[in-house]
Amino acid sequence: MKRTLINNLVENEETKVSGWAKKVRDTKYMIFVVLEDRTGSIQVSIDKENNKDIVKDMEGILPDSVLEFEGKMVLSEYVKQGGKEFLPTKVNRLSKAEALPLEDNANIDTRLDYRWLDLRSKKNNIMMKVQSEFVKGMREFLYNNDFTEIHTPKLIGTASESGSEVFEVDYFDRKAYLAQSPQFYKQMAIASGLERVFEVAPAFRAENSNTYRHATEFTSFDLEFAYPDSIEDIMSLEEDLLIAGLTSVKEKYENEINELFNTEVIIPTKPFPRIKLEDLYKELHERYGYEIPTEDIGDMNNETEKLTTKFALEVYGSEFIFVTNYSKAKRPFYHMRDNDTPIGYDLIWRGTEITTGAVREHRYDILKKQAEEKGLKKDVEFYLEFFKYGCPPHGGFALGVDRLTMLLLCIPSLKEEMFVFRGPNRLNP
Amino acid sequence: MKRTLINNLVENEETKVSGWAKKVRDTKYMIFVVLEDRTGSIQVSIDKENNKDIVKDMEGILPDSVLEFEGKMVLSEYVKQGGKEFLPTKVNRLSKAEALPLEDNANIDTRLDYRWLDLRSKKNNIMMKVQSEFVKGMREFLYNNDFTEIHTPKLIGTASESGSEVFEVDYFDRKAYLAQSPQFYKQMAIASGLERVFEVAPAFRAENSNTYRHATEFTSFDLEFAYPDSIEDIMSLEEDLLIAGLTSVKEKYENEINELFNTEVIIPTKPFPRIKLEDLYKELHERYGYEIPTEDIGDMNNETEKLTTKFALEVYGSEFIFVTNYSKAKRPFYHMRDNDTPIGYDLIWRGTEITTGAVREHRYDILKKQAEEKGLKKDVEFYLEFFKYGCPPHGGFALGVDRLTMLLLCIPSLKEEMFVFRGPNRLNP
Repeated sequence: MKRTLINNLVENEETKVSGWAKKVRDTKYMIFVVLEDRTGSIQVSIDKENNKDIVKDMEGILPDSVLEFEGKMVLSEYVKQGGKEFLPTKVNRLSKAEALPLEDNANIDTRLDYRWLDLRSKKNNIMMKVQSEFVKGMREFLYNNDFTEIHTPKLIGTASESGSEVFEVDYFDRKAYLAQSPQFYKQMAIASGLERVFEVAPAFRAENSNTYRHATEFTSFDLEFAYPDSIEDIMSLEEDLLIAGLTSVKEKYENEINELFNTEVIIPTKPFPRIKLEDLYKELHERYGYEIPTEDIGDMNNETEKLTTKFALEVYGSEFIFVTNYSKAKRPFYHMRDNDTPIGYDLIWRGTEITTGAVREHRYDILKKQAEEKGLKKDVEFYLEFFKYGCPPHGGFALGVDRLTMLLLCIPSLKEEMFVFRGPNRLNP
Repeated sequence: MKRTLINNLVENEETKVSGWAKKVRDTKYMIFVVLEDRTGSIQVSIDKENNKDIVKDMEGILPDSVLEFEGKMVLSEYVKQGGKEFLPTKVNRLSKAEALPLEDNANIDTRLDYRWLDLRSKKNNIMMKVQSEFVKGMREFLYNNDFTEIHTPKLIGTASESGSEVFEVDYFDRKAYLAQSPQFYKQMAIASGLERVFEVAPAFRAENSNTYRHATEFTSFDLEFAYPDSIEDIMSLEEDLLIAGLTSVKEKYENEINELFNTEVIIPTKPFPRIKLEDLYKELHERYGYEIPTEDIGDMNNETEKLTTKFALEVYGSEFIFVTNYSKAKRPFYHMRDNDTPIGYDLIWRGTEITTGAVREHRYDILKKQAEEKGLKKDVEFYLEFFKYGCPPHGGFALGVDRLTMLLLCIPSLKEEMFVFRGPNRLNP
């Protein structure tokens, strides 16, 4: 007999249903089970008098056990569960659960210890599905726009971007390093004649920081494309990409998100507002009396990001805002510069930076000079080679998949959002 | 002025084209450039007498430089390149190439040193696009069948599957390990209430072996789903998945594959043939006089795989064949067993194993016993926990994305197929 999904049950048809016993209630004459699968839940009603075998098999069955019932669904006006109940003739105990160790009010670290139990809630299940849908929507947009998906190496030969935040790996008789981003390799793809590429893959940062938005391993959505006419082309593509992802999510999960996360999926309209960093400083000063600390001049910090969102909402009615014209001291050497100002941006959404995008410097001599200015030499030698034998002008950006989902669903930290979180003090489960 | 892609050029329309100067030929009165972008190529014809500025700018321009020409396309009966040529009024030298260091007959290791140049060939560009399309087709099939994409951690706390082939990472004041596969975590997703999950992500193996089909890092396409009725459900899903991927590739790249790789994309039909290992041994013995070496009894080896393909083609006319009923000594502890025989299979395609699939043991007590039999204890403790509090029965399999593409396009080794290959002696570029 084939399993029928709970949502697809047809009245009076003999079949079987399988799922989690989310509730088990044993009364004098009846046992009631709320059975749940990926499509929904149903009340299974067991008349004890006429189902001695089932009663025996149900002995010791605790919630979150996995059961399979043979029988049929009937309509019943007495049942709250959608007016349907399942009357079984047999039960198969697929997996007996021990008493659950995780209490409802457990703190986040205990919840992470039992992450697979924590994820069983409807809310967290939807969270994982929303993340999947977000990425799906963005990927489809890129496929439709002639992008090729690539898989770049995570094991690399030099600690390229900055030695201190790179994980070291024992690689046979030498050291390897874990890639902090696919930056150099997506640029290699451009030099390889692939004009438009993207990758969704893990990135690794050996940062000993414990904030709501940092993890030592996270999923990076990276893209790069050749021949942008200007930075506007890159921002425009990012606008389209985010609109595609958010639209996909809204179409599929709008109700669940409203209900479970008490928030709205807002589809932004093009163009998102843009502002130069210097002008932003002025605005934040005039409007909110905010003064950027000296050490952050030329850059943003957490507080600036929060205020920038406030500003964007008040002035433009937009959740998104591009900030451009950062200082070269605060940007990596591989951003192209225009009169010494990097041609790039950060995109701020709901109080948090979600992207750094830029036109890349593709001219070997200038790139080499910019690397040397930052004190980079040996570690970037292999990378500089990519630009010696012809390389189209190009640009791109990266998005953190986990961070995006966290912000979309107003989840307070990556710890709660990631399938399995990794931080300086957490390598389990 | 916006760039026009070469394939989209309209006669006599002023525009600009950008791409690689694949050939540059300087004659007495004319300079000819074959310019190539991602859509095609065109001859750019420069009349030296009337374009002094362009002639000057073209000085020292070597092949593989990246150029942008402003001008217009005209039809010309003298031009082989599709009867079209581009008459420029201006050239912008986007990127000047040095003389290419890679000769046509370079060996594979030299080619890998300059992988970005090696990938520029039309053949290798198409190879990367075919891989992207293969994965796209498979992913779309899974999305349409209610699968959720997950991103599991690659940094793990214990050297779980077998210590010797795991890379060690310095993780702050302790050791972490690189995941050899997402096996344990995709099963955790099942225990988390996600009924059907998949992941496309890097996997790491510290194997010091140099064969045509091994790499220390590769892209693994993994999936797992709950409530299979039997192993047949898993094999059937894999059939559908491969048919979806191959169909996608065939629709988009059939001609290029025929022409550049001199091979056919053959869409298999369901069901693929299935044979028990023991029966296969008999067949190979009777037909080809082959005797399995004692140490491999209960398993396959390279030669068996080659002969199995020969057998499948001769007897079933199929490129694919499932081999079932391996010995438990040769399979991991987490495969469910039926009378001591693992409920699983390998799938063989074109002489090479491409998948191990199985129903998983989801019952805590039995799983624990099977782990102990294999001498696994401490390293799998965290994993066993996933099965204590209820877990649906489930199964799944994994495919190597690189290996699939290699076999599809009849490429002799992963070295040549992967975007950037990683082996015991190779960490560059």
